[in-house]
Amino acid sequence: MDALQQVSAYWRAANYLSAGQIYLLDNPLLTEPLLPEHIKPRLLGHWGTTPGLNFVFAHLNRIITERGQDMIYIAGPGHGGPATVAHAWLEGTYSELYPDVSQDAAGMRRLFRQFSFPGGIPSHAAPETPGSIHEGGELGYSLAHAYGAAFDNPDLVVACVIGDGEAETGPLAGSWHSNKFRHPRKDGVVLPILHLNGYKIANPSFLARIPPAELAKLMEGYGYRPYVVEGDDPDAVHPLMASTLDAVFNEIATRPEHLPMIILKTPKGWTGPKEVDGKPVEGTWRAHQVPLSEVRTNDEHREQLAAWMRSYKPEELFDDQGRPYPEVVGLVPKGPKRMSASPHANGGELLRPLVLPDFRDYAVAIERPGTASTSPTQVLGTFLRDVIAANPHSFRLMGPDETASNRLQAVYEATGKAWQAATLPTDENLQPGGRVMEVLSEHLCQGWLEGYLLTGRHGLFNCYEAFIHIVDAMFNQHAKWLDTAREIPWRRPVASLNYLLSSHVWRQDHNGFTHQDPGFLDVVLNKKASVVRVYLPPDANTLLSVADHCLRSRDYVNVIVAGKQPVLDLFDREEAVVHCTRGLGIVDWASNDAGQEPDVVLACAGDVPTLETLAAVSLLREKLPDLRVRVINVVDLMRLQPPGEHPHGLPDAEFDALFTTDKPVIFNFHGYPWLIHRLTYKRNGHDNFHVRGYREEGTTTTPFDMAMLNGIDRFHLVRDVIDRVEGLGVRYAALRQEMTDARLRARAHTRAHGEDAPEIRDWTF
Amino acid sequence: MDALQQVSAYWRAANYLSAGQIYLLDNPLLTEPLLPEHIKPRLLGHWGTTPGLNFVFAHLNRIITERGQDMIYIAGPGHGGPATVAHAWLEGTYSELYPDVSQDAAGMRRLFRQFSFPGGIPSHAAPETPGSIHEGGELGYSLAHAYGAAFDNPDLVVACVIGDGEAETGPLAGSWHSNKFRHPRKDGVVLPILHLNGYKIANPSFLARIPPAELAKLMEGYGYRPYVVEGDDPDAVHPLMASTLDAVFNEIATRPEHLPMIILKTPKGWTGPKEVDGKPVEGTWRAHQVPLSEVRTNDEHREQLAAWMRSYKPEELFDDQGRPYPEVVGLVPKGPKRMSASPHANGGELLRPLVLPDFRDYAVAIERPGTASTSPTQVLGTFLRDVIAANPHSFRLMGPDETASNRLQAVYEATGKAWQAATLPTDENLQPGGRVMEVLSEHLCQGWLEGYLLTGRHGLFNCYEAFIHIVDAMFNQHAKWLDTAREIPWRRPVASLNYLLSSHVWRQDHNGFTHQDPGFLDVVLNKKASVVRVYLPPDANTLLSVADHCLRSRDYVNVIVAGKQPVLDLFDREEAVVHCTRGLGIVDWASNDAGQEPDVVLACAGDVPTLETLAAVSLLREKLPDLRVRVINVVDLMRLQPPGEHPHGLPDAEFDALFTTDKPVIFNFHGYPWLIHRLTYKRNGHDNFHVRGYREEGTTTTPFDMAMLNGIDRFHLVRDVIDRVEGLGVRYAALRQEMTDARLRARAHTRAHGEDAPEIRDWTF
Repeated sequence: MDALQQVSAYWRAANYLSAGQIYLLDNPLLTEPLLPEHIKPRLLGHWGTTPGLNFVFAHLNRIITERGQDMIYIAGPGHGGPATVAHAWLEGTYSELYPDVSQDAAGMRRLFRQFSFPGGIPSHAAPETPGSIHEGGELGYSLAHAYGAAFDNPDLVVACVIGDGEAETGPLAGSWHSNKFRHPRKDGVVLPILHLNGYKIANPSFLARIPPAELAKLMEGYGYRPYVVEGDDPDAVHPLMASTLDAVFNEIATRPEHLPMIILKTPKGWTGPKEVDGKPVEGTWRAHQVPLSEVRTNDEHREQLAAWMRSYKPEELFDDQGRPYPEVVGLVPKGPKRMSASPHANGGELLRPLVLPDFRDYAVAIERPGTASTSPTQVLGTFLRDVIAANPHSFRLMGPDETASNRLQAVYEATGKAWQAATLPTDENLQPGGRVMEVLSEHLCQGWLEGYLLTGRHGLFNCYEAFIHIVDAMFNQHAKWLDTAREIPWRRPVASLNYLLSSHVWRQDHNGFTHQDPGFLDVVLNKKASVVRVYLPPDANTLLSVADHCLRSRDYVNVIVAGKQPVLDLFDREEAVVHCTRGLGIVDWASNDAGQEPDVVLACAGDVPTLETLAAVSLLREKLPDLRVRVINVVDLMRLQPPGEHPHGLPDAEFDALFTTDKPVIFNFHGYPWLIHRLTYKRNGHDNFHVRGYREEGTTTTPFDMAMLNGIDRFHLVRDVIDRVEGLGVRYAALRQEMTDARLRARAHTRAHGEDAPEIRDWTF
Repeated sequence: MDALQQVSAYWRAANYLSAGQIYLLDNPLLTEPLLPEHIKPRLLGHWGTTPGLNFVFAHLNRIITERGQDMIYIAGPGHGGPATVAHAWLEGTYSELYPDVSQDAAGMRRLFRQFSFPGGIPSHAAPETPGSIHEGGELGYSLAHAYGAAFDNPDLVVACVIGDGEAETGPLAGSWHSNKFRHPRKDGVVLPILHLNGYKIANPSFLARIPPAELAKLMEGYGYRPYVVEGDDPDAVHPLMASTLDAVFNEIATRPEHLPMIILKTPKGWTGPKEVDGKPVEGTWRAHQVPLSEVRTNDEHREQLAAWMRSYKPEELFDDQGRPYPEVVGLVPKGPKRMSASPHANGGELLRPLVLPDFRDYAVAIERPGTASTSPTQVLGTFLRDVIAANPHSFRLMGPDETASNRLQAVYEATGKAWQAATLPTDENLQPGGRVMEVLSEHLCQGWLEGYLLTGRHGLFNCYEAFIHIVDAMFNQHAKWLDTAREIPWRRPVASLNYLLSSHVWRQDHNGFTHQDPGFLDVVLNKKASVVRVYLPPDANTLLSVADHCLRSRDYVNVIVAGKQPVLDLFDREEAVVHCTRGLGIVDWASNDAGQEPDVVLACAGDVPTLETLAAVSLLREKLPDLRVRVINVVDLMRLQPPGEHPHGLPDAEFDALFTTDKPVIFNFHGYPWLIHRLTYKRNGHDNFHVRGYREEGTTTTPFDMAMLNGIDRFHLVRDVIDRVEGLGVRYAALRQEMTDARLRARAHTRAHGEDAPEIRDWTF
């Protein structure tokens, strides 16, 4: 067999294995007549995209084998599971990782049976799939993942098949422009293969129906050089694909600044049934899922299935033990060159810990807690600067044009912003190959970072808090990936996905209501406790400690919410470590309940709520000096949950000792208040919890006015104490009124003068 | 003055008013020397994009006046507030709607003072801004909004200025393709104006830095005919813009199938300070916000501000009373032709109620509740079919390629899917101008629908439940818009944004874990109670009733979660109306506590949880006939909240009468269980609530296996009853074990045979 014949045989084998996965419970080699009991009771799978994915895979194997190219494969089309699994089995990887799915008839039977079967494997590329860093469930992220994988992997080609359905999504449409951020020599090559099979679930895709010249312009406008491979006769398309790939890889090898891409136009459900029940199937949307739907009950359908599968000539592909003949897998690369076995696609194998400077060296010196103020993110910027310098090829900082706005600008002392387009003399900090990735697309920041992490590197995504909701769905999918991957023994742990959310709800002086939304935390906490962590460091030193911890962690999503505006320095270097290690604790210097039961607990999480809590305590200690107040600050939100619900959960006895079981707890929270109830409702003292937080009252106004609007200000808190501590209500009615008056005065001042009242702004503990 | 001189004067006036809004508390006409006390204490606003927005607006007014064109204006760039407000004031609309902001010096002073000031107006186009249907906070949706506004408005031109920052976002990148869905005669024209001012907050934008020929190809690839207007000398750019607009509008008038667009390349912060403190500002990112930042304290800055504002020659623009001279506003259109006064931009003014057939006519006939099964969405499809037929120009059904998958295919009897690209003989239901909008982009579905609703029409967005998270952020912003708009007297109510979420978490037999996420409800309930509603109709007839209610409602976001798979018919036509009107109620025929206190309450919300609850009750009545069981089904989730927190909240006395205050309540919920705790934690009986729901256990498996995996199945529920009703635990230990055994048997059957155990599937009440 010559190389093209081998490609063709491999393709037929992959198509056979794909159809088998969708349909067969038994009789995998069709050695017996096909009977109803050989057919799965529920036919769940997607044939339509599969032959195209197989076609590309088969041809890329020739390139890898002939050129020794390092390559990974991203299957963008939603339900390419049968294809990616078939390849891993043909390449031998599947049987290495799942020995019971051996490369023989018994293994083939298991391979077929497990697909989209209860207790088996999903119907799309997934963490279970060897060679995959991309889950084919929610569409739109393949190309961003591909670029993330290619960054800092100069010898790697990432072949990214993009479905024409997926190509309609916004995130995918924006991802083409990732090339403006790719360094031609320091980064690898992404080879986009836009697969126009013409249809989505039930509709044509528009990119398959616009004039070809228009599509070519679109690709050129995106900055690529399109090559077209089109046809429905395999005998014609095979040589065309092969010669095109040769041309493309010659170009890649000799002109690293060029960006070729391939438009592959082949029929949906190619080589499958042409017609079923008198209706055209191959080349139409009817091929999307299961082209023959009644194979168990309809004899004609069953005969059609048998004829279809036999059309691949299994007897030429597999020996009588079910092993692929050597010529069929003759172009399969060796060892880690196999795309199903590339360590890049099991990034934990390549992961090296970050070289981290000692974060304590960046700590703010504190004379007396609660007196001076510092911008936490500005301090973090100095730490990140040196993290970047110490890890010049394995750490990237992502941000949607907000890195400087979030006060991390110290990083520019160590690096620039990745940029490959034209520059002007007035530009600052642009640098081809820079470690900061600034693009006004949260989707790209997230997608790049996911691709970068899953191929064994590290990073942090800094974002305005409100707009991180733009990637809620991507976060959900990544958390699901991690949750599944950590149960798969051969998947090695990868670096955590770290979010730094700043420019948060309480400090949107410029931007107002549209920029005020702390609800990402609620989304995050819907995901499995095993993979999500949320931190609310109240000052610069605690932010340093939390960031260091997150950068060392594996297989989590860490969300850090921290302010960019100066906040009170509360914890000195060593206290910060202790406080963050505990995750929550009594703020001794602000409490006056030493050694006794408090009368009231004032708890807080988040920088602005902590400030207001301390201000309230200051008022209380002045006005009610005999009241025993305990102040608790919470950094690690998961400590509030019972230990049965989250591994960080504080044991009930410790929780009760801290919060008491019978004293009022006034909890001042950064986000929506019910989140604290949700985390604590099983706690003994929960009925005594009174939670304040953001209640969706927002506008363009001063920080203290925002606090008052939502009731998290010092005056409301003092009133809460008077209202809730037994016996205070009657005795301190005048003080209660005084608090109300002070609040109304402060609001009036703000509305008259456009600024917080002076005593509010100048306050220190 | 000739027309171009008038355009120029208008532009200078708008620029003057824009700078004034950002800086001035007083001395609006600069009749006195500029003193520190004339300057706002906090300078919050964005100058950079403003002169470009003003430039476009000024030129479009000439077109409107000369041609009598109906037009609205969408300001995509984030912080164009000063521009849009300036125009509304110059056009007189502002003073009509806000009489205290009169069109004179006193009004100008108020106009300046209120901008980005506590108690004033936001810094970007917002609901408060006359003529706006688009909020400039979160970026990426301008072009989708523009197309939504243009659909079914054949005489309207929607001028859509797209910032080059915004153009980097995924949703915007995908929105260009909206043209594939626009009918050249039945829909209006969208005129995209890509404004390349070159910079985002702190970085260049890549579209301004790629070769011009590449950008032109990109636009042609998107299907537009680009016209370029470029320059920094106003004297040169004015005539170029005018002649270009003449050419563009001639083309629009004569070639409706053509799609012109304009690339406008002018400096960021055009006509503002060229240099500040020795650094270039005009034409750089430094012009993004406030070019002169220390005007109150730095005399040089203040002098520069005065010189800058005087450079517009206010004395030529406004008379000594502060009224614009007639020539300055000579090209302002009249009445509703003014873009700031267009009724299209206050869509409630144009809103006509839908012609709705009687939904009762579509109801499923029910012999005996809980015996037969029907697909709820399939029935809804027949109702929607006739809604579409009865409202051929004012209702659209959006879906990301999922309308048939969600079983709404009956709609194709009345209409097709909008489609303007090429067709093939095998295509079905494609139709230029069709009422169903199918594009594989949740962002486009949402953006189009928002634009369509805000211009006074109606619609429904059907989506897979899990993937609606893709538009979490867009939902947040729309809910904020509605929340603000309903407090603005001149904004008329618009039709609600209706979501139909199907293919839900419990029925992802094909798709598995990636498609299982009911968390959108948690996101929705973070928004103001005044604008959000959530419904979980358990069967076909309740879905009809809920849908009818939602289609009649105004100014809400309605979320309906409903199954596409057949579920038991529970409520007959009239009972469904009563049940949905109440929002929750006792299911009499399933309960046996008539006239007495129950021993246990089994509550449920959602179709699959309701089925399992009924199955559990069936087991209980067989095995524990003396146990008094009350079954409550909840359709309207907001009924659970206290009335102080949501207008739908059930009064405490009624809640207590239904749920009791001391009996165990086993609540079987569609979504994440803590949502029910969040809604009910203030209720008297809350401590007795035991909630089951989705706990993020997912995979590709059978429906009943999914229920078991997450513990919402009948066997778990019966065990809960035994565990929680006093005295049952000991007596019924054997039954408890029987339930466990039945569950394990069912799971084993599924894993062995790939299907639910027969008795599970065939069960009826």
